[in-house]
Amino acid sequence: MKLAVIAGDGIGPEVVGASLEVLKAVAPSCELSYTTTDFPFSAAHFLETGHVLSDDNIATLRAYDAILLGAVGGLPNDPRLAGGVIEKGILLKLRFEMDQYINLRPVTLYPGIETPLKNKTSEHIDFVCVRENTEDLYCGVGGFVRKGTPQEMSTQTMISTRFGVERCIRYAFELAKTRQRKHLTLVHKTNVLTFAGDTWHRAFQEVAAEYPGVETAYHHVDACCMYMVAKPEVYDVIVVPNMFGDIITDLGAAIAGGMGIASSGNLNPDGVAPGMFEPVHGSAPDIANQNVANPIATIDSLGLLLRETGRIKSNAAAIKAGECIGAAVRKVTPKFAGKNLDRSGYGTDEIGRMVIEAL
Amino acid sequence: MKLAVIAGDGIGPEVVGASLEVLKAVAPSCELSYTTTDFPFSAAHFLETGHVLSDDNIATLRAYDAILLGAVGGLPNDPRLAGGVIEKGILLKLRFEMDQYINLRPVTLYPGIETPLKNKTSEHIDFVCVRENTEDLYCGVGGFVRKGTPQEMSTQTMISTRFGVERCIRYAFELAKTRQRKHLTLVHKTNVLTFAGDTWHRAFQEVAAEYPGVETAYHHVDACCMYMVAKPEVYDVIVVPNMFGDIITDLGAAIAGGMGIASSGNLNPDGVAPGMFEPVHGSAPDIANQNVANPIATIDSLGLLLRETGRIKSNAAAIKAGECIGAAVRKVTPKFAGKNLDRSGYGTDEIGRMVIEAL
Ligand SMILES: CC(C)[C@H](C(=O)O)[C@@H](O)C(=O)O
Ligand SMILES: CC(C)[C@H](C(=O)O)[C@@H](O)C(=O)O
Repeated sequence: MKLAVIAGDGIGPEVVGASLEVLKAVAPSCELSYTTTDFPFSAAHFLETGHVLSDDNIATLRAYDAILLGAVGGLPNDPRLAGGVIEKGILLKLRFEMDQYINLRPVTLYPGIETPLKNKTSEHIDFVCVRENTEDLYCGVGGFVRKGTPQEMSTQTMISTRFGVERCIRYAFELAKTRQRKHLTLVHKTNVLTFAGDTWHRAFQEVAAEYPGVETAYHHVDACCMYMVAKPEVYDVIVVPNMFGDIITDLGAAIAGGMGIASSGNLNPDGVAPGMFEPVHGSAPDIANQNVANPIATIDSLGLLLRETGRIKSNAAAIKAGECIGAAVRKVTPKFAGKNLDRSGYGTDEIGRMVIEAL
Repeated sequence: MKLAVIAGDGIGPEVVGASLEVLKAVAPSCELSYTTTDFPFSAAHFLETGHVLSDDNIATLRAYDAILLGAVGGLPNDPRLAGGVIEKGILLKLRFEMDQYINLRPVTLYPGIETPLKNKTSEHIDFVCVRENTEDLYCGVGGFVRKGTPQEMSTQTMISTRFGVERCIRYAFELAKTRQRKHLTLVHKTNVLTFAGDTWHRAFQEVAAEYPGVETAYHHVDACCMYMVAKPEVYDVIVVPNMFGDIITDLGAAIAGGMGIASSGNLNPDGVAPGMFEPVHGSAPDIANQNVANPIATIDSLGLLLRETGRIKSNAAAIKAGECIGAAVRKVTPKFAGKNLDRSGYGTDEIGRMVIEAL
C-alpha cells in the first residue's frame, strides 16, 4: 500500500507522526507492506511558496492508494488565508479532483468517551453518515450582480445530478445492507427544496426498490438535528447531500464526544483515485508543538483508511490492519473516561504508545 | 389589537383555544382591548375545498395587526399533501406575502424544563436566533434539466440581496443592543459559499461599524451546531440566513427542551403587514382532540406576538400583556419538572388555567 501523507499545519505533524508509529507497529503482524511519502501541502507551505495544490500535485498524488491528512489551516483570521483559500485549495480540490464522492463519517460513542447528551450511551449513538461529497452548494456555482452597491444580489446554487445522487445513495444502501439493523434514512428538505429534494427523493425511492432488505426512512434536515440530540438511536445509516451533510456530521461529532475523537474519510468506492482520510478537528495552532494534541482521531482515521482502501483494492492485509487499529482504539478510549479529550494529561506520543500496546 | 386566528389542524384548535383563554384573562388588567377573527386555513380546509390561502385571503389578513397560528399539516405521508403544499401554501406564503423578513426564535431554557444536555442550566441556554425569512433557498428558484432521465440535473438557488440581508442584520444589531451581553454572532458558511457568504459577511461588517457597543463574532454553521450542544453559553444573539436558520433553530429548540416548548414569530419590524406567531411544533394529529396537547408553546408564542406587535404598533397595553404572559409561563414551567412535556399528565385546558392563575 502506497500512502501519501499530508501532515499539514499546527498539530497535524504531531498527530500524523503518532499515527504512523501505530502503522509501523501493526503492519508486521498483519503482513501489511506499505510505503509512505510526505507532501508539504498546507497553509504554511502556501504562505511560504504561494502554492496550494497544483494540477501537477494532483497528478502525482493519483499514483498513491490513499492519502492520510493531519490538518490544514493557519491562524484564524489571517487575512492572507481569507475566503477559504486553504479549504478550497486543498481539501475541496482533493475531493473534487479525485472524485471522492463519498464522505464517510462514523458517529460512534466509544467506551469511556463522554457524550454531552444525558442518558445516552454507546448503544444509542452508533451510526454512520454517508455524505455526498462532489455536488450541491460545494460546486462553487454562483455569482454577484451589482456587487458592492445597495442593489447587490448574489446567487449560490445547489447542483444535484441523478448520476451523482444515485451513486451516493447506492453506496449508502450497500453499507446499510452490511449492518445489523439494515436501516437507511435520507435527510433532505424536500418540503422547501422542491427541485434538489425531488431529484434526491426519486432516486432514493427507485434505488430502495432494489434493496427490499433495507428499511428506509426520510427526515427533514431540521428534524434530523432534533433527533440527533433527543433520540440519536433512531439512526443506523444516514445518506445526505453535501451541505446538510457538513452540518449534521459536525453535530454527529459533537454528540459522540467532539472533534477530538471524530474520524472521516473521503473516498471513491470505485477506486478510480485515492481516498483522503483525516480527523475532523482542525490544525489547532494554539496547542501545536507541545506534545499535547490528542492523536486518537487521526489514528482512528488511519484505521478507516486501511479498512476502506483495503476493501476497494482487495487488500486483505490492509483490512486486517485497519480492524486491529479500530479495536485498539476502542481499548484505549476508556483511559479518557472523566477527562477532557483535548487536555487529557497524556502526551501525543504517549497516546500513540497506548494504542500500540493495545494492538 | 385586531388578531387573526388560524387554529389549523390536529392539536392546533386546542392549543390556540387555551391561549385565547389566557388572552381573555390577561387583557383587562393590562387595559388591552382586542378582537379575534377565526380563519379556516389548514390542511383539512385544503382537502375539503381545494383552497390553501389565496391572494384574496392575504388581502383580508393584511387588515389585522397580527396572526396567531396553531399548527397546519395533515397526516404524514398523505399523498394529497405531498411536495409541501400546505407548508408552502400557508406558512411560506404568509412569510413572503407579508414580507415577514424576521423569524425570531428565542432559545431559552425555562425553569423546570429539562435540556437533553449534561451540565447545562438556564444560565447556559439563553439566546435568540434572528433568522432571515424571505430570501435564500426559500425563494423557490431552481429547475430541472432532463428530469426523469439518467442525465437529470436540478438546481436550487440561494438568493441573497444586500437589501434583504442588511435589514435583517440591522434588526439583529438593534436587538443585541437591548440585551445585557450585547453580543451578536453571524452564522454562515463563508469558506464554501463564497458568493452568498460574501454578501452576508460584508453587510455584517459594515453594519457592525455602526454599532461599536455590540461585540461580534462569526461561526461557520457546522461549528455552530457543535457549539450549541457543547457550549451554548457562547451565544447571545445569532443572525443567520434562512436555510441555516431553519436548521439551527430546530437544534436550538431541541436543547431548550424540545418542540413542546418552543415559540416563534415571523414579523415585519417596519409594520407594513401583520406578523405571524406560532409554536414550533406541528399539528400532531395522533394526539388531537384528546385534551392532552401541551399549549405552553402556543401561549408563549402569544406572549411574543403581544410584545413584538406592541412594539411595532406602539401599543403599550399589548407589550404589558405580553410581558405578563411571558412571566406567567416561567412561573408555570417548574410544574413540568421531571415530566415529559408532551405527556405531562395535565390536560390542555388545565395547563391554560395554570398559566391564568400565575398571571
Ligand atoms: C473545511 C471545510 C471546507 C469542510 C467542509 O465544509 O466540507 C469541513 O467543514 C468538513 O466537513 O470537512
Ligand atoms: C414547515 C417548514 C416550511 C418551515 C421552514 O422550513 O421554515 C419550518 O421548518 C419552520 O422552521 O418554520
